[in-house]
Amino acid sequence: MITKFAIPEIIFGRGSLDYAGQCALRLGAKKVFLVSDAGIEEAGWLQRLMDILEKEGIKWVYYPGVTSNPRDFQVEQGAEFYLKNGTDVIIAIGGGSAMDTAKGIAIIASNGGKIRDYEGANRVERPLPPMMLITTTAGSGSDISQFCIITDMKRGVKMSIITRTLVPNISIVDPLILRTKSESLIIQSAVDALAHAIEAYMSQIASPFTEMHSLKAIDLILAHLQSAVATRSVDSLEQLSIAAVSASMAFSNAGLGAEHALAHSLGGHFDMRHGVVHPILLTSVMRFNCKINPKKLADIGRLIIKRQLGSDEETALAGIETLEAFFASFDVALRLSQLIPESERHHLEPICKMAVLDACNLTNPRPATWEEFLQICEEVW
Amino acid sequence: MITKFAIPEIIFGRGSLDYAGQCALRLGAKKVFLVSDAGIEEAGWLQRLMDILEKEGIKWVYYPGVTSNPRDFQVEQGAEFYLKNGTDVIIAIGGGSAMDTAKGIAIIASNGGKIRDYEGANRVERPLPPMMLITTTAGSGSDISQFCIITDMKRGVKMSIITRTLVPNISIVDPLILRTKSESLIIQSAVDALAHAIEAYMSQIASPFTEMHSLKAIDLILAHLQSAVATRSVDSLEQLSIAAVSASMAFSNAGLGAEHALAHSLGGHFDMRHGVVHPILLTSVMRFNCKINPKKLADIGRLIIKRQLGSDEETALAGIETLEAFFASFDVALRLSQLIPESERHHLEPICKMAVLDACNLTNPRPATWEEFLQICEEVW
Repeated sequence: MITKFAIPEIIFGRGSLDYAGQCALRLGAKKVFLVSDAGIEEAGWLQRLMDILEKEGIKWVYYPGVTSNPRDFQVEQGAEFYLKNGTDVIIAIGGGSAMDTAKGIAIIASNGGKIRDYEGANRVERPLPPMMLITTTAGSGSDISQFCIITDMKRGVKMSIITRTLVPNISIVDPLILRTKSESLIIQSAVDALAHAIEAYMSQIASPFTEMHSLKAIDLILAHLQSAVATRSVDSLEQLSIAAVSASMAFSNAGLGAEHALAHSLGGHFDMRHGVVHPILLTSVMRFNCKINPKKLADIGRLIIKRQLGSDEETALAGIETLEAFFASFDVALRLSQLIPESERHHLEPICKMAVLDACNLTNPRPATWEEFLQICEEVW
Repeated sequence: MITKFAIPEIIFGRGSLDYAGQCALRLGAKKVFLVSDAGIEEAGWLQRLMDILEKEGIKWVYYPGVTSNPRDFQVEQGAEFYLKNGTDVIIAIGGGSAMDTAKGIAIIASNGGKIRDYEGANRVERPLPPMMLITTTAGSGSDISQFCIITDMKRGVKMSIITRTLVPNISIVDPLILRTKSESLIIQSAVDALAHAIEAYMSQIASPFTEMHSLKAIDLILAHLQSAVATRSVDSLEQLSIAAVSASMAFSNAGLGAEHALAHSLGGHFDMRHGVVHPILLTSVMRFNCKINPKKLADIGRLIIKRQLGSDEETALAGIETLEAFFASFDVALRLSQLIPESERHHLEPICKMAVLDACNLTNPRPATWEEFLQICEEVW
């Protein structure tokens, strides 16, 4: 198998945000297009970034129109704003939503059309403006990956847009930024990274280079999430940052799986964050995949339970059970019915039919049918 | 600590050479500057690459002036040849020598001056032409790294030129190419990769991202080198390729250490390949470093002997002994006196004084003094 491995230049470490100005200069920045969101503004990080840029004599235009689960029309409006302002480098500071908004704007600004024209893999033809992404969570991995997730409002679905040119030029990961995050956001982000790592490991196009990053991420998240939540120590938060970067190196190059396909479809319909649905769906999809590739799932099981049981299947299942107990140790929803009212349950069928079409489903050990997706949803209702 | 991690886009796998044309097109190639050496020409790989480029309508100019341990004047001649021919992308196919020649040419062609002007870290200011490197060995890592080693003929020393812009745009790693390599070249290359991995792990600027790649590489080389030499199976050769890529991801970003500093100095003086001196020097430098950082060396020891002994130092030393037995299992020189005649022994002092100045010595757990280098040389004479 021929495999590709591409990542941005990564500047990692406590205080690395301070290098944003020098990095922007290296990308040729004179006047940058800044993308962020209200939470980051409020926490003071945006102003900090603006100060750093100003110190290097870099001008900026600020585009504030980011919401969680970014929508098609927001990206298209952002691109108009971009084109009016004659900027040269796109910089986003925020979580997956701010970074994906920036990526969507970059696509439309340089390739034209509507964002839904680019759904799926490798549909973006012309080069994008230089991009620098500064993540404020340890989860989405958008700062490393060739993925961009935008909601198509008409169909009510989160579209996966996947293309190598979406890998930014530079990714800045500063664990100190995580200190201002809420407990629930730290958990959701870490669980998202864990799902990235596990799905990338199981992917049909996983390679030795993505596999080592997947396993590293799984190991770090299981070892450090509880202490990160309990103590908020920078040491633990830094370990989660390393895990999130590793997980994104893996999934950006190996793709994801059926769980993310279903999460996108559910999230598009109900406007839910990824991180909320993973503790509900992930182990259920792992059980589904265990029938198809118990050997690889046993590698994950061995890493989680730190030993090998009688058979691959036993090892894999013991790992899944330990993972379920791990999720249950946090204050998170574990059944779909905790998130979706019974009166909306009938939407599951169209949601599952949509999930089949998601690009992430293609790299699952075996793509799931809509009936299989529905069965998974019913199991975890 | 702020840490940087940058690697090229990697196209990996059996038959990945076939993608060279498409990759060159992506870099904007119309007429490329090809660098290779006589061995690769003879083995037919150069012609194969030319055919692949022609199929995509790409023209080329071939620069054949590569020898092992490339010299300053060769690079400077190459740059003249480059500037005369109006080419747009530099492509090298070969081992470290061909790739480092291509890198040296890229520097002079775009930044002018003499190659010795760029010795050390971050001395190259202007951007280089787009580069695609196709390695034909599993060792040097030049196809991944920001390193370029060129011999300064006047001083008789291998200069380390280290700058992020030396990371090529694309690296193609095709394990099938290794099948035409001699047994001794496979061993020398693998041992070079092993030294990269170990020195990068011990480096003062190692990061979690480089450490995981170091450990992966050490593990794979110890597991697969013997079978690769004995069977020449593509499976084993592929594992060595994965190891070499991992090791280069590590050392390119973490730097190397005192062993490479000494190897460069010895190699510059006596025109010796890297791979020949590592089995002699590596474990001796590890013993030297064990006094400074036994904890990290114990990580390597634990990986090699698969268990932890009473103390870090014991574990580290047991790992070193196993490594010595590993080297002794191959047909390689294990003492300096096997490579250097007694009548030349007095050159060791100036060689050790030169090694102190090598950029690689700076990232050693503690830079070695020339007296310490000399002691190491005498120990392994």
